Amino acid sequence: MTAPVSIRGVGTSRFARQPETPPTHLAWQAVTEALADAGVTPAAVEAVYAGTVFGDPGVTTRTLQHLGITGVPVVTVENACASGTTAFHEAHVAVGQGRYETVLAFGIETMTAVFDGPIEPLLSDPEGAQGFAMPSLYGMAAHRYQHCYGVTPEQMALVAVKNRRHALGNPRAQHAGEFTVEQILDSRPISDPLTLLQCCDISDAAAAAVLGPPRPAGGTGGDSDVPVRASALASGQAWDHTSDLVWGWQLVSDTGRAAFEQAGIGPEDIDVLEVHDAFTIGEIVTTEALGLCELGGGGALVASGRTSLGGAQPVNPSGGLLARGHPLGATGLGQIAEIVWQLRGMAEGRQVEGARIGVVETMGGGTAGIDGNACVVAVLEAPGEPR
Amino acid sequence: MTAPVSIRGVGTSRFARQPETPPTHLAWQAVTEALADAGVTPAAVEAVYAGTVFGDPGVTTRTLQHLGITGVPVVTVENACASGTTAFHEAHVAVGQGRYETVLAFGIETMTAVFDGPIEPLLSDPEGAQGFAMPSLYGMAAHRYQHCYGVTPEQMALVAVKNRRHALGNPRAQHAGEFTVEQILDSRPISDPLTLLQCCDISDAAAAAVLGPPRPAGGTGGDSDVPVRASALASGQAWDHTSDLVWGWQLVSDTGRAAFEQAGIGPEDIDVLEVHDAFTIGEIVTTEALGLCELGGGGALVASGRTSLGGAQPVNPSGGLLARGHPLGATGLGQIAEIVWQLRGMAEGRQVEGARIGVVETMGGGTAGIDGNACVVAVLEAPGEPR
Repeated sequence: MTAPVSIRGVGTSRFARQPETPPTHLAWQAVTEALADAGVTPAAVEAVYAGTVFGDPGVTTRTLQHLGITGVPVVTVENACASGTTAFHEAHVAVGQGRYETVLAFGIETMTAVFDGPIEPLLSDPEGAQGFAMPSLYGMAAHRYQHCYGVTPEQMALVAVKNRRHALGNPRAQHAGEFTVEQILDSRPISDPLTLLQCCDISDAAAAAVLGPPRPAGGTGGDSDVPVRASALASGQAWDHTSDLVWGWQLVSDTGRAAFEQAGIGPEDIDVLEVHDAFTIGEIVTTEALGLCELGGGGALVASGRTSLGGAQPVNPSGGLLARGHPLGATGLGQIAEIVWQLRGMAEGRQVEGARIGVVETMGGGTAGIDGNACVVAVLEAPGEPR
Repeated sequence: MTAPVSIRGVGTSRFARQPETPPTHLAWQAVTEALADAGVTPAAVEAVYAGTVFGDPGVTTRTLQHLGITGVPVVTVENACASGTTAFHEAHVAVGQGRYETVLAFGIETMTAVFDGPIEPLLSDPEGAQGFAMPSLYGMAAHRYQHCYGVTPEQMALVAVKNRRHALGNPRAQHAGEFTVEQILDSRPISDPLTLLQCCDISDAAAAAVLGPPRPAGGTGGDSDVPVRASALASGQAWDHTSDLVWGWQLVSDTGRAAFEQAGIGPEDIDVLEVHDAFTIGEIVTTEALGLCELGGGGALVASGRTSLGGAQPVNPSGGLLARGHPLGATGLGQIAEIVWQLRGMAEGRQVEGARIGVVETMGGGTAGIDGNACVVAVLEAPGEPR
């Protein structure tokens, strides 16, 4: 990376099943909020990176047309659940390389349009065709964790208790609520040991960020610019089935270490995180892989309260994928928006007081054969921090 | 662009309806050929940009897993018909910025998996839902050309005669054949005035290129490296419906001029071109927009023989999208492969003798409201040319 990069503005729609709202309109909400937050006009945008998984071909450029952002290079990316953070990463690289002064990254997904009935198995997904859909893969990881590390169903349920409670402070979240461990465990079984309240729902939403070089403090927007200290993107290695590390662990660990090295931080320096918790076991695995605790210690970590709001290192104050919502291509930029609001002290109702270093992690896809299609880890810093 | 970039190797599958061959296997064929051509192993690949329009989420990373290309940043892009050339463009930028020494770009599409029955209108495509599918949009452009510029049905048909004849020399082409103008015009009407033989078919294929900094001549591969003199990517402006310029004209013209300026060439310097001729009128519009002739002169240009093999500036020696085939995400890298083979003198059966400057143009998508989702124009140079 050759030059420093800041996030100048962020925005999101609300996260919900909202099939009545076209994806272009969801994106319009997110992008107009991000542009206003950044203090830039649509005409100032020099390049766009967009993320979507199941969006129609052309949906991102149609959105930009509605916004009057035309004539510029637009690249739409797909990287499974990490599509939005991949768009963010590519925008970060483009600004860091000095190619542009103002780059828009946005993510968009209308899952209700795809998952509203029986789903055809994907042509290239032999595991999925045999029933190894995402809940099954995570269910197997959960079983492995019970077997190898003694993680308990109650510890897994605590992730859902925590993140659904966190979402009570987030007016844009999809599934906030106050639940007991018993209620979580008693909800409908989905893929043993995971129950309904331990699984993310389908969701429709959009989220956006505007990136550019840092602006001077005290001037036009510089005081609220959030420096990006690092962004790393990688795909998984072939998964070693003889390993006790479940699918995705190594990829998240490798990508996290690359990002932390780039940022010059260690896991102990992080004040707040938004990580991939599409299923409760996912947050347990991820907090370990990022080094917040030792291998197998993720269950005890959530039980300790350290990752709850009020603890030393709150994880998923927005509610995470479980409770804010997980609209695939929009998720990563929703995570970025949350961390930006946290670092600016704007996350009313769920603020991590004095947060100065925030981390976003998204892990996307993967099968029984590969250790994740993609992972992005980004390290952001509070405005006005010395680098 | 900060540093020179070369294409070290290219490869493609054959272009055909081949639903029996999984997309991952088509991509395997293209990528292994490109890697062998470049003289590099899978382990040498440092980053990947992949293009697909309707490919399943994850199909590109699954392909890479089969090839043993894992652990590296992989970004899958969608930009309608220009998806493959967008992947090429992003790879070109990444090498030019000095980020990597060896980058793989590939494109993949299995259209038979998507277009094998009734097609649901895309959620975000109101024009398409009303019947303004691609043949209709091109049919309207063709009518406009007849009205404004006196382009004749016979001139349009000549594009199909030429490109289907060119494809006779291309063993990987989908629809080669020797036809008369009368046969073209007498084929089944699709969207007046376009007849069946003036429209591309659906196609399954993959294509790939390996990019890196130029290697020394006389050494390991440097003698066959094809320098990239320019690559430009843009999206369309809102389309001015009161203009006599049909949909896409201005975008292709603007992108072409940007690429030619970057390369320091004019249209008169081009020896061979692969351009977007999904429908015959498309090639007529594109040759004008790229400046091979004046506005409205595209019909007379094809009739003159100048753009036929043996003419001064052959267009689509591979057969083009019409006759080689148009597997959306694979198309752009198929065009790149053809121009690389032409500039190396390897296009046996369809070689443009002494070609030293070659151009690839792909225009993607667009609706009645926007002048094309994306256009990429790249300028390539024969190996060993002084810059």
